[in-house]
Amino acid sequence: MDITEFVNRSLGLWRSQRSAHHLAFRHTEEVTSEIAIEPLDRDDPEVIELCQAYEIDPQLATVPFRMSWEGESDWDEKEELKGTTVLVPIPDPEDPKKGKLLRDRGYAETMAAVGNYQITEDGTFVLTTSYDRAAAEEKIWFATPNLRMRVSLIKTSGGDGVTTASFSSEIRSLST
Amino acid sequence: MDITEFVNRSLGLWRSQRSAHHLAFRHTEEVTSEIAIEPLDRDDPEVIELCQAYEIDPQLATVPFRMSWEGESDWDEKEELKGTTVLVPIPDPEDPKKGKLLRDRGYAETMAAVGNYQITEDGTFVLTTSYDRAAAEEKIWFATPNLRMRVSLIKTSGGDGVTTASFSSEIRSLST
Repeated sequence: MDITEFVNRSLGLWRSQRSAHHLAFRHTEEVTSEIAIEPLDRDDPEVIELCQAYEIDPQLATVPFRMSWEGESDWDEKEELKGTTVLVPIPDPEDPKKGKLLRDRGYAETMAAVGNYQITEDGTFVLTTSYDRAAAEEKIWFATPNLRMRVSLIKTSGGDGVTTASFSSEIRSLST
Repeated sequence: MDITEFVNRSLGLWRSQRSAHHLAFRHTEEVTSEIAIEPLDRDDPEVIELCQAYEIDPQLATVPFRMSWEGESDWDEKEELKGTTVLVPIPDPEDPKKGKLLRDRGYAETMAAVGNYQITEDGTFVLTTSYDRAAAEEKIWFATPNLRMRVSLIKTSGGDGVTTASFSSEIRSLST
């Protein structure tokens, strides 16, 4: 499994059921959402702009994509869980299992971010991203071609504490 | 990370917060429990008996342990979630990252079971177990020394469908 195969298997519409464990409160928040993952062209202006913001040659970009989501939480029903972000993988030329992932909107903080990914021998995509005041670690893998699992940890910026541990099961929407 | 280090890091008392996604119903069940993991001697009669049941030389057993749990679910408050099981790792003599795990009570079915484990390069313990009418895949890893993550999938016996995906965050109880 390399990043191209991983992204290609991720394309489509997904219904997500997510449980977020807020560890300090021992509280579980339930979020249901719809996620759309669509391919982008390498010469899409948003892809080029994001590469330029990180001073990376857009020619190094592989399988850029857009992820959009819309959902609701049982914790704060008024909170609008809706957004979209452009993601651009930049594989390491020396090791195709590793690379950087640029995104124009982060997971732990809503600012542009660059993370480091690797794909482990058992096909798990592991992404670590450092933000100003936090760090995030995400593991994503396919249990079946139509069931994607995602575990996301929000860590303190030093990386030695975990504040939130979330689990998503994402089922592919086969209907259109 | 080998099995000895993994089990030694797991010893102790844990408070577990578990979210079980019953995929067909899109229902999440919340379970809170206390888990105790204690070492056993290799010459403990229960360890020897379990090895003999699988016709395995008890001398091949490494770091056997007992896991006990007691908890409650928000789905069926009358259901008693309480149990104990003896677990005996039998490392593969050719590859210390792999082996068999014997247990006198299974996860998907309450019968004795033998699973195959491997420890991946990023320190995740991956266990697959086949039962009569189901299969289970568990991934367990340490986010920090005092925070253990566990993702458990219950699969159909053929292994190509998933009925339940569960996520546990297990926090070490530092008080006694």
